[in-house]
Amino acid sequence: MIPRYSRPEMADIWSPETRFRIWFEIEAHACDALAELGVIPKEAARMIWEKGGAATFDVARIDEIEAVTKHDVIAFLTHLAEFVGPDARFVHQGMTSSDVLDTCLSVQLKRASDILIADVDRLLAALKARALEHKFTPTIGRSHGIHAEPTTFGLKLAGFYVEFQRARERLVAARAEIATCAISGAVGTFANIDPAVEAHVAEKLGLTVEPVSTQVIPRDRHAMFFATLGVVASSMERLATEIRHLQRTEVLEAEEFFSEGQKGSSAMPHKRNPVLTENITGLARMVRAYALPAMENVALWHERDISHSSVERMIGPDATVTLDFALNRLAGVVEKLLVYPERMQGNLDRLGGLVHSQRVLLALTQKGASREDAYRLVQRNAMPVWRGEGDFLALLKADAEVTALLSDAELEDAFDLGYHFKAVEQTFARVFGAA
Amino acid sequence: MIPRYSRPEMADIWSPETRFRIWFEIEAHACDALAELGVIPKEAARMIWEKGGAATFDVARIDEIEAVTKHDVIAFLTHLAEFVGPDARFVHQGMTSSDVLDTCLSVQLKRASDILIADVDRLLAALKARALEHKFTPTIGRSHGIHAEPTTFGLKLAGFYVEFQRARERLVAARAEIATCAISGAVGTFANIDPAVEAHVAEKLGLTVEPVSTQVIPRDRHAMFFATLGVVASSMERLATEIRHLQRTEVLEAEEFFSEGQKGSSAMPHKRNPVLTENITGLARMVRAYALPAMENVALWHERDISHSSVERMIGPDATVTLDFALNRLAGVVEKLLVYPERMQGNLDRLGGLVHSQRVLLALTQKGASREDAYRLVQRNAMPVWRGEGDFLALLKADAEVTALLSDAELEDAFDLGYHFKAVEQTFARVFGAA
Amino acid sequence: MIPRYSRPEMADIWSPETRFRIWFEIEAHACDALAELGVIPKEAARMIWEKGGAATFDVARIDEIEAVTKHDVIAFLTHLAEFVGPDARFVHQGMTSSDVLDTCLSVQLKRASDILIADVDRLLAALKARALEHKFTPTIGRSHGIHAEPTTFGLKLAGFYVEFQRARERLVAARAEIATCAISGAVGTFANIDPAVEAHVAEKLGLTVEPVSTQVIPRDRHAMFFATLGVVASSMERLATEIRHLQRTEVLEAEEFFSEGQKGSSAMPHKRNPVLTENITGLARMVRAYALPAMENVALWHERDISHSSVERMIGPDATVTLDFALNRLAGVVEKLLVYPERMQGNLDRLGGLVHSQRVLLALTQKGASREDAYRLVQRNAMPVWRGEGDFLALLKADAEVTALLSDAELEDAFDLGYHFKAVEQTFARVFGAA
Amino acid sequence: MIPRYSRPEMADIWSPETRFRIWFEIEAHACDALAELGVIPKEAARMIWEKGGAATFDVARIDEIEAVTKHDVIAFLTHLAEFVGPDARFVHQGMTSSDVLDTCLSVQLKRASDILIADVDRLLAALKARALEHKFTPTIGRSHGIHAEPTTFGLKLAGFYVEFQRARERLVAARAEIATCAISGAVGTFANIDPAVEAHVAEKLGLTVEPVSTQVIPRDRHAMFFATLGVVASSMERLATEIRHLQRTEVLEAEEFFSEGQKGSSAMPHKRNPVLTENITGLARMVRAYALPAMENVALWHERDISHSSVERMIGPDATVTLDFALNRLAGVVEKLLVYPERMQGNLDRLGGLVHSQRVLLALTQKGASREDAYRLVQRNAMPVWRGEGDFLALLKADAEVTALLSDAELEDAFDLGYHFKAVEQTFARVFGAA
Repeated sequence: MIPRYSRPEMADIWSPETRFRIWFEIEAHACDALAELGVIPKEAARMIWEKGGAATFDVARIDEIEAVTKHDVIAFLTHLAEFVGPDARFVHQGMTSSDVLDTCLSVQLKRASDILIADVDRLLAALKARALEHKFTPTIGRSHGIHAEPTTFGLKLAGFYVEFQRARERLVAARAEIATCAISGAVGTFANIDPAVEAHVAEKLGLTVEPVSTQVIPRDRHAMFFATLGVVASSMERLATEIRHLQRTEVLEAEEFFSEGQKGSSAMPHKRNPVLTENITGLARMVRAYALPAMENVALWHERDISHSSVERMIGPDATVTLDFALNRLAGVVEKLLVYPERMQGNLDRLGGLVHSQRVLLALTQKGASREDAYRLVQRNAMPVWRGEGDFLALLKADAEVTALLSDAELEDAFDLGYHFKAVEQTFARVFGAA
Repeated sequence: MIPRYSRPEMADIWSPETRFRIWFEIEAHACDALAELGVIPKEAARMIWEKGGAATFDVARIDEIEAVTKHDVIAFLTHLAEFVGPDARFVHQGMTSSDVLDTCLSVQLKRASDILIADVDRLLAALKARALEHKFTPTIGRSHGIHAEPTTFGLKLAGFYVEFQRARERLVAARAEIATCAISGAVGTFANIDPAVEAHVAEKLGLTVEPVSTQVIPRDRHAMFFATLGVVASSMERLATEIRHLQRTEVLEAEEFFSEGQKGSSAMPHKRNPVLTENITGLARMVRAYALPAMENVALWHERDISHSSVERMIGPDATVTLDFALNRLAGVVEKLLVYPERMQGNLDRLGGLVHSQRVLLALTQKGASREDAYRLVQRNAMPVWRGEGDFLALLKADAEVTALLSDAELEDAFDLGYHFKAVEQTFARVFGAA
Repeated sequence: MIPRYSRPEMADIWSPETRFRIWFEIEAHACDALAELGVIPKEAARMIWEKGGAATFDVARIDEIEAVTKHDVIAFLTHLAEFVGPDARFVHQGMTSSDVLDTCLSVQLKRASDILIADVDRLLAALKARALEHKFTPTIGRSHGIHAEPTTFGLKLAGFYVEFQRARERLVAARAEIATCAISGAVGTFANIDPAVEAHVAEKLGLTVEPVSTQVIPRDRHAMFFATLGVVASSMERLATEIRHLQRTEVLEAEEFFSEGQKGSSAMPHKRNPVLTENITGLARMVRAYALPAMENVALWHERDISHSSVERMIGPDATVTLDFALNRLAGVVEKLLVYPERMQGNLDRLGGLVHSQRVLLALTQKGASREDAYRLVQRNAMPVWRGEGDFLALLKADAEVTALLSDAELEDAFDLGYHFKAVEQTFARVFGAA
Repeated sequence: MIPRYSRPEMADIWSPETRFRIWFEIEAHACDALAELGVIPKEAARMIWEKGGAATFDVARIDEIEAVTKHDVIAFLTHLAEFVGPDARFVHQGMTSSDVLDTCLSVQLKRASDILIADVDRLLAALKARALEHKFTPTIGRSHGIHAEPTTFGLKLAGFYVEFQRARERLVAARAEIATCAISGAVGTFANIDPAVEAHVAEKLGLTVEPVSTQVIPRDRHAMFFATLGVVASSMERLATEIRHLQRTEVLEAEEFFSEGQKGSSAMPHKRNPVLTENITGLARMVRAYALPAMENVALWHERDISHSSVERMIGPDATVTLDFALNRLAGVVEKLLVYPERMQGNLDRLGGLVHSQRVLLALTQKGASREDAYRLVQRNAMPVWRGEGDFLALLKADAEVTALLSDAELEDAFDLGYHFKAVEQTFARVFGAA
C-alpha cells in the first residue's frame, strides 16, 4: 500500500484512528453485554460509551505506551483509561487481546469488501454501457493472436461483464465468510466470559458468531478472502491485457483516453501508451501474490501462534487498497475508452476473406464432401491468400473442385458477415436479461 | 500426480480412456441435438451412439494419428470414424475443438469435486466421532506453543470439524462454478451451431450453460477452483501440523497409529514418527502451489490462447489427485489416532497451576484491585513457578497482598478445572447441533 | 511430469531404476571406505561391488518389500541382500536412510543441471546464429506495444542471448550449490560413521562434502535450485511471448515453423497459430510455481522432518523435466523460426515517419529551441500523422516555426534509418565478442 | 513496508529524497560525459553539478508538476530546471526516462544489498559466538519431532551458521547481478547517445554496463534478486522455527530474551511467548511472496512495457525493508537467547536411554547378529521403555539373547554420551576453520 496506488476511502479503513475506533466499539459493546449479565455495573458501561465515544484517541500516545508495554491492546486500554477514568477497569473483563484484534480485522475486511463490491459495480456499469453501445460493432475474434472469425466488440465486453458478475458474487461470498466475531477468551472456552457477550457484539457490528474460535478466528477464512481477491485481480488482468492488445500500434482498435496535456514519453512525443492498463497488470500480480502468505497463515500452531499477524498487517491494507485502486482505474479506462470501429472493420478485412474459411468448409461438407476433402480444398485456396497472393473468394470461385459443389451465390453467402451475429441478441439476453 | 500419492478412483478421471469417453458423449449428445434441429440425419445420430457407444477407443492408435495431425481432437474424430463409418462426417458439425475439450474438463473437475467432497465427508465423520469421544478430555490449550488455559481435546477437534465444514461448502461452491458447458463455436458466436445444441449437451451432462464463452470457458472459473483447493489444502496442513505437534516426544498426547511390522527408522529402532502427517504437510504445499499458475491462466489473449492447456494437463490431475490422496490419508490418521488422555493431564499439570493465572487475575480485580495491581500480584507469584521454584497456589496463599483480597477458598476455586468446560456443551451444540 | 512434456534423457534420471542404481553406488562406495577404515572386511566390499554391480534391481520386488516394511531404503537393502548374500550385512553400517536419499537427490539434480545447461547451450547457439543472420534487419522497436524507434531484429535476439547466458551462469551456480554429499548418520554427528566415508563417497560421485548436515542436507540448497529454475523459466516465457507477439496477424513479422501436414484448427483451416510458444508460456508458469513449495521446504523441524520428501518426489521430476522439454522446444522454435524482413520494414513504415520524432526533437533543441518548445513543435506535427492525416516529414517541412530552425536537408537527415544502427556493431561485440 | 517493521537506514533508500538525489547524480554524471564528448558545453555540466548539487529537491513541488505532466521524470527535470536555469536544457540529452529510472533502481538495490549483507554478518557473528559457547552442550537431536540421538547445541548453531554463510554468498551474487547501468536511449540502440556516456555513469556509480538494454534493464536480473531474498527469508524462517520449538512449554530448552516490563498476554500474566520469532516467521512468508510478481515481471512485451513498475514500487521497498528488519530482529534474538543446558540434559534423559538404541543395534551386528535379528532385539526392549515401562539399559541387561552377544560393560559403553561428540571438533573446523 503506497499513496500512489491508494484511494482515501479504502486507506482510511486501515488507519490507526479507524482501528482504535473499532476496538473501542468492540470493548464498549462487550461492556453493555457484561452489564446486562450483571458482571459489571450498567453505569460503568454507560460511562465508557459516553467518555470513550467522545474521545479522540491519540495515536502517538498509544505508540508511546506500547513502547513500554510491548503490547498494543494493553497500550490502547491504558490510553482509554485516561479518558474513561476508574470505570476503565471494567473494560475487557474476561476478554483476551485477540478477541478485539480479530473481530476488528473482520470489521475492516467486511468494510473493505463493501468498497470492492462497489468498485466492481462501477466497472459492471461501464462494461454494460459500452457493451450495449457496441453490441453490433463488428470486430475480428482472435484465437492464439491470429484472426479467427468475426464477432462484435459488444460480445467481447459482455464476456467481461459476466466475468465481473462472477467476481462480484465471489466478493459477496468472501465478505460473508470473513464477517465473524469471536469473544471467547484465552483459548476459546468462554471460561471467563459468557457467550452472550460475543452474540451481542456480533449483532451490533453486523457480524455472525464464529462457531469455534481458539483465541483466534480460524485463518482459513482469511485465506479464502485473499485467494478470492487474487482471482478477482486475475480477471482484472485479463481485461487490462485485452485493452493493451487493442491499443498496439498494428491493431489500434481502441485506446485508453489520452488527455491534452499528457506526455507519453520524455523522448518520443508521438507516443500514446496504454500505461493505465499496464499499471493494472502489475497491480494484479501483487494482489495475486498476497494470496500465498494468507494460505500459509492457516496452519497456526495449536490454539494459535502470532505468525499471521505481521502478514496481515501488510496484506490487509496492501491487497484491499491495491485492488480497490486498480478496479477503479480499470472502470475509468472502460468508461472513457476510445473505440475505433473503422479500425476494427479494417482489421477484419485484412485477411482477404480467410476468416470465412470455416463457413466454406461446412458448406462443402453439407454438399457431400468428406471432412478431409473439404479441409484440403479450403486449405489449398487459403494458403496463397495467407501469403498475400490473391483474394480468398476469387480463388475459390476459380477452383473447379470447389465450384463442382458450390455455386458462386453459395460461396458469396458464406462470406456474409451478418451470419456471425445472429446469436448476439440471445447472448445479450443471457447476460443482461431480456431487452 | 505420482502413483505413490494417487488413489485409483481419482486417477481414473484423468486417464485417456475416460477423457475419450467423455469426448464421445459430448459429440454424441451434440449429434442428437443437431438431428433434432434437422441439421444432420436422425439415423446418423443413432448410429453414432450405437457404434461409438460400443467402441473401445484405442489410445495408442489415437496417439499415432495425433503424431501426424498434431491435433488431439482431430485425431480422436479420425479414430471415431474408424468405428462409426460414413456417418462420422456428421460428428462435430459447427463445433470447435475447445467445445469438446473445455466441456470435458468441466465434467472431469465436477467428478473430481464429487470425490473430494466425499473425502471431506469421511474426514468430517472421523472428526465428529473423535470429538464426541473426547468432548470432556482435558488438555492444555496452547498459544504461541506456550501453555495457556485448559480446554478439551474434543473442542480442538470440533474446531477442525467446522473448518472442514467450511472446506466442504467451498468445494460445493467450486463445483458449481466449474460445472459449465460451452458449445459455441470458433469465437463463441454460435455462427455455425445453434445454442440449442449447447443447452442439450449441458442438460445431459449435468452442467449449466456458460453465458459467454469465447471458444473457451473463461479461466476465472478454473482459477477459483484451484484456489479453493489451495485453501482446503491449507486447512489440511493445520490439522496435520497439530498432530505432528501432539506426537513430539516431549508432548506425546497423541500418535499416528503404528502397525506392528512398521519400521520407523533404519537406524533407530525405537522411533515412531508422524510420517503420515508430515507427508500431508508436504502435499498441502503442492496443492497450494498449483493455485498460482491457475490464476496466471486467466488473462488469455483476446478470445483465447492455448497457454492454459499445458498448465491444466498438469494441475488438473496433480491438484485433484494429490488433495484426494492427502484428505483420505488424513481421515485415516484421525480415525485411528492414538490419543493419550493421561499424558494430556500430565502436561496440563506441568506448570504448577500457572494456567489458572488469569482466573486469579480476574478474581483480584473483582475484589477491587486495579488491573495493573492485579497483574503485578499475579506476575510476581507466577515467575518463581515458571522457574520451577514452587507451586502457584501455595505461593498465592502465602502472599499477604493477595490474601488481603482473596480467601484460600476463593483461591482454590480459581484453580477448578471444570470451570473452563462450562461452555463445551454450548459450543458442541453450535457445531454438531443440539444433542 | 507427463509424457507429453517429457524428454527421455531427463525423465530417465527420475526412474526407479536410476534411483536404485545411484543408491547402490552410494552404498558400495561407502563400503569401500569402511573397508579401508577396517570397519568391514575388504573382501565384503569387493563382493558387494561385484554382485550388486552385476544385479538388475527388480522395482516390483522392492515395492513388494516396501509394502511390508513401509520404508523404501530398508526395502532396497533387503532386495540387495538377495543378490549379495551374507556380506550384505556390512552394507549401510552406521548410515541412516537420508544419507542415501539425500546424496542420491544431489546426484540426480546435478545430472539434471547438466542436461539443462546443455539445453541452454542449444538455445544460445540458435539465438546467436539467428542474431548474426539478422544483425542489420531493420525492425521497429516497441515500448508499451507502441512503435517507438527503429532497432534491428538481430539486436532483439542478442538481448535474449545475453539473458540466456545469465540463465546458464545461474544454472551452473545452482548445480554447484546442490552437488553435495552427506553421510553423517542419524543427526549428523558422525557418531557411528567416520567422516572419511563421506569424503570418499563425495569424491567418487563428483560432489562436495556438506559442511553440516543434520540427517538431511539443508533444504536452502534445494530452494535455491528450484528458484533458479523459476527464473530461467521466466526468461523462457519472455522469448516465447515475443514470438507470440511477432506472429499476431496484424504484426506477422515472424512465425513458428509450420510443417506441411499440420492442421492449425479443426474448424478454421487457414489458421497458423503460435502453439509451441503458447505451450512454453504455460510450462513456464508451472516451473515458476514449483519454486514455492521448495522454499516452504526449508524450515524443517529441528534436525529434520520429512515434509520435504513428498514435495521433492513431485517437483524433482516435474520442474526439471518440464523445463528441459520447454527449453528444447524453444530452441527448436528459434532454429526454425520463419522471419519476414519485408513485413518488419512494412510495419516500420506504418507510422508515416513518426518513429523519427525524437531525432527531430533533439535537432530542434540543438538549434536552440527550449525542450518545451521543441516538444510542442514535434507534438503538433505528430498528432495529425497519428490520426492518419499526412506524412510527418512533409508536415514538418511545412511548419514555419520548424523550418526557422531546421533546413529541409537537416530534417531529412533526421529521418535516416542508418542513424539508429551505428552502435549495433559495438553491442554485438559486447555480446558475442569482437568479430 | 510499514513503519512497525522498518529500520530507518533501509527505509531511507526508498524515500523520494534519496530517489531524486540518485536521479540527479545519474543526470549530472551523464552531463559530464556528454560535455567530454563535446555534445554539451563543459560549463553547462559544471553548472548543473554546482546548482543541482546544492539544491534541496522539493518532493511536494515535483508531485505538483507530475500531477499535470503525468510523468515523473519530466516533473523532476522541470523542477531541476528551477534550480539550474537555462543550462538545464542540456540535461537528459538523448536519454530516455528509463535510463534514469532503471539505473536508479540498480543503485537502490545495490545499497539495499549492502545493508542486507551487513545484517547477515551481524547474524553470523551472533551464531558463531553462541555456537562456540555451546560447542559441547549436549542436547537431543530430533527427527520428525521425535528424539533421535544426542548432538550438541553448538552443532545446531553451526549448521545455521553455514546456512547463513550461503545466504551471504547468494546476496553477494544477487548484488553483482543487479548492479548494472543502462543509458542506451529509447529502445537501447544508442541512437541519440554515445555508449561512452553509459560507461562513464556506470563507473561513477560503481555499476557495470548492461550488455543489452532495451529501454529497460532486463527483468530477469530483478527476478533473480527477489528470488534470492525469498530463499534467504526461508533460511530465516528455519532458524525462527527452531527457536519457537525450543521455547515450547514442554521443551523449554531456550527462550527469547524477556525484558522486565514486558507483558506476554493481557489475560495471562505468566506467559512468555516467542513472539519475535513468530513475527519473523510471518515476515518470511511476505518476503517469499514477493519473489513471484518479480518473476512474472520478466516477460515484458517487446522492448518493454511498464507493468513491472507498479510491482517494483511496492516490492522494492517491501522486500528489502522487511528482510532487513527481520534479519536484525533475528540477530538480536540469537545474541540474547536464553539457553538452558540443564533443560537440554533433562530432555535428553527423558527417553530412558532409548536414544542409544542405534549404538546397541550396531554393537549387536558387530558381534555377528544379522541386521534383522539385531533390529528385533533392540525393538523388543525399546517398546516397553517407549511406553514408560522400564529403563532401556536395564532391560537389555536382562535379555538373554542380548547378553549372549554383549557383556554389561559393552552395553554400558553403548550408552556413553561422549561417543556422539567425537566429530564435533572436526565439524567446527569445517565451519569456522581450524581453532
